[in-house]
Amino acid sequence: MSLTDSVQNKQPGVITCKAAVAWGPGKPMVIEEVELSTPQSMEIRVKVVCTSLCRSDVTAWLSQAQASIYPRIFGHEASGIVESVGEGVTEFVEGDHVLTLFTGECMSCRHCTSGKSNICQVLGLKRDGVMHGDQKTRFCIKGKPVYHYCAVSSFSEYTVVHSGCAVKVSPIAPLDKICLLSCGAAAGLGAAWKVANISEGSKVVIFGLGTVGLSVAQGAKMRGASQIIGVDMMQEKCEKAKAFGVTDFLNPNDTDEPIPQVINRLTGGGADYAFECIGDTGMVTTALQSCCDGWGLTVTLGVPKQKPEVTAHFGLLLNGRTLTGSLFGGWKPKSEIPSLVEMYLKKEIELDDLITHNLPFEDINTAFDLMKNGTCLRCVIHMPEIEGFPMAGN
Amino acid sequence: MSLTDSVQNKQPGVITCKAAVAWGPGKPMVIEEVELSTPQSMEIRVKVVCTSLCRSDVTAWLSQAQASIYPRIFGHEASGIVESVGEGVTEFVEGDHVLTLFTGECMSCRHCTSGKSNICQVLGLKRDGVMHGDQKTRFCIKGKPVYHYCAVSSFSEYTVVHSGCAVKVSPIAPLDKICLLSCGAAAGLGAAWKVANISEGSKVVIFGLGTVGLSVAQGAKMRGASQIIGVDMMQEKCEKAKAFGVTDFLNPNDTDEPIPQVINRLTGGGADYAFECIGDTGMVTTALQSCCDGWGLTVTLGVPKQKPEVTAHFGLLLNGRTLTGSLFGGWKPKSEIPSLVEMYLKKEIELDDLITHNLPFEDINTAFDLMKNGTCLRCVIHMPEIEGFPMAGN
Repeated sequence: MSLTDSVQNKQPGVITCKAAVAWGPGKPMVIEEVELSTPQSMEIRVKVVCTSLCRSDVTAWLSQAQASIYPRIFGHEASGIVESVGEGVTEFVEGDHVLTLFTGECMSCRHCTSGKSNICQVLGLKRDGVMHGDQKTRFCIKGKPVYHYCAVSSFSEYTVVHSGCAVKVSPIAPLDKICLLSCGAAAGLGAAWKVANISEGSKVVIFGLGTVGLSVAQGAKMRGASQIIGVDMMQEKCEKAKAFGVTDFLNPNDTDEPIPQVINRLTGGGADYAFECIGDTGMVTTALQSCCDGWGLTVTLGVPKQKPEVTAHFGLLLNGRTLTGSLFGGWKPKSEIPSLVEMYLKKEIELDDLITHNLPFEDINTAFDLMKNGTCLRCVIHMPEIEGFPMAGN
Repeated sequence: MSLTDSVQNKQPGVITCKAAVAWGPGKPMVIEEVELSTPQSMEIRVKVVCTSLCRSDVTAWLSQAQASIYPRIFGHEASGIVESVGEGVTEFVEGDHVLTLFTGECMSCRHCTSGKSNICQVLGLKRDGVMHGDQKTRFCIKGKPVYHYCAVSSFSEYTVVHSGCAVKVSPIAPLDKICLLSCGAAAGLGAAWKVANISEGSKVVIFGLGTVGLSVAQGAKMRGASQIIGVDMMQEKCEKAKAFGVTDFLNPNDTDEPIPQVINRLTGGGADYAFECIGDTGMVTTALQSCCDGWGLTVTLGVPKQKPEVTAHFGLLLNGRTLTGSLFGGWKPKSEIPSLVEMYLKKEIELDDLITHNLPFEDINTAFDLMKNGTCLRCVIHMPEIEGFPMAGN
């Protein structure tokens, strides 16, 4: 398909392109022709180049709680090239390389200007399937709305995002790798560096060694942690975990001893920092129990598939333990993500080894299967090249 | 009773004195003659001068969970004068004025030397009714053990504590006032200053306006908080709350609106800091909900009477809220409490107005009643003077 072909004006500026549409919770994606409106005020339209699958795409897709927000286009961890810009956008021009942001940065609300929060009050995480601003969709099929995911919806050849939900990156950065900095890898590094602020010589335990957990391990290793215990039930993750900095691999299936007790013994009194990277609120409790008194910090990163309530015995708190959460690793996305791209280009951080699979767009359901069965860290979906649209950098 | 009379050697050094003995959970104290052994290695024997009642004495006394640890002498918030010292004690001499410490400081464990924890691993909170070290009692009646509370047991004319569980204070400080720095008042000030580290201009909400809550308010006011919302169901606390710095008194009985919603509205987006000073884990959840996204910090100080599990929706954490606890306000008790005594002497902190009642020792059951019915902030129990024992400073 050429760009010229795909731009079939329904309304001025509307294009038709292919998108992986989910028609209901857990139902396989169907690649459909969708209409995508022109970017509206302060929005940009992006040619998606690569989009990797994140566990939370799968969790949201399987959730019955969001059954009303269908048909829907998932995907929120992506790289691309600006195709056009809406009214008022001065920050981007056609051809700019960007990462999409599932949580944006307006640069002016009290959170964005606080210096201590990345929870933008204007362009924050959008769970209701529509865009910031007018609360409508930009996609439709035959005039009927197709809902968004996190106001990104990158499982599509093109998408529209708010200009505050994308960040310009170096044009020499490979888009098929740095898409991981759009969510998972950045989330783990930020949790280690910005949220926990891991100090040299400290003892760390990480529950769940997916992309996020391994990125926490990488961040902890770079901060000089003396012990990094990785907890995961999949033994085959051990080797890669060690490459990312895990010093002790702990498979809960290998022991009858309660995990906090094992961690307490291995660390000599509990970990300084614990990270829950599974999305299991029961494991958050285990993480808190695995920390030391006095200064033990538990950071929860995962989005739980069920039971959204974390429970913690008050005595753990009273004895000086702290529980906090991390959305996107605490990064202010527009202000800070470009520096991670630079670090990748200087080979200071590892992303390539987090990519276990690469698939063409038409195999997107395979990517969901891979993520569901747990053998996959990141599967990068390569969107088709479009004639007439330069895909430099991919 | 003269000191000479009371020192009736059963074994060498054993004294007989009067103590308020609880014979079972919730049973009124009976003032009994008890035998108190000589201070053992690294212990000191203290003539209790004043001891105030803390809510946690009442909670522990009412708890069926500790029914096996009776007969028992409660009391852990006290001032006194060193009567004698055990082997190896060089820090104290007879006549020193001290505050007892329900959580001690050994000065050498990894927590005491960490610079970031007051959870001493050697002399920490003792819940099992016996002393650190030999795990035995120092009190007995006719040879049968009478158990301790927090290894302090200050509802007695004399008590024995580990030398790491007492701190020497200025002899000019009035012992009938500074006893409040042995627990409640210090706990609140420390939660505001050391644990939360309240910043100027911030918005604070305090659940429960007892001695601890009002001390948090005092600490917040001294840090320049711009708004201090006090939540309490007893309307009669309003006036005193305002004197301690509360800017907005909120009585949950006066509104049908959920409290977090009210706080959110009053603060324009949630409090920067929330303090749970009731001992109600459900209220900890409310406190967390009342904080703002991004940097909202909830500090739990209370010991719950029931339901020891705190629950928190993961989304509150993911959005950047933090939950932590505070034992004794994070103070390293021996290192830091003397500076609070100095602040009191310089009239930089208020204690006197927290004392709503003064009673002689024989009325100790009245003090329990006052604390139970909620009309009392602090009731200071004045121990009888003993002939031959100088009670200077009281």
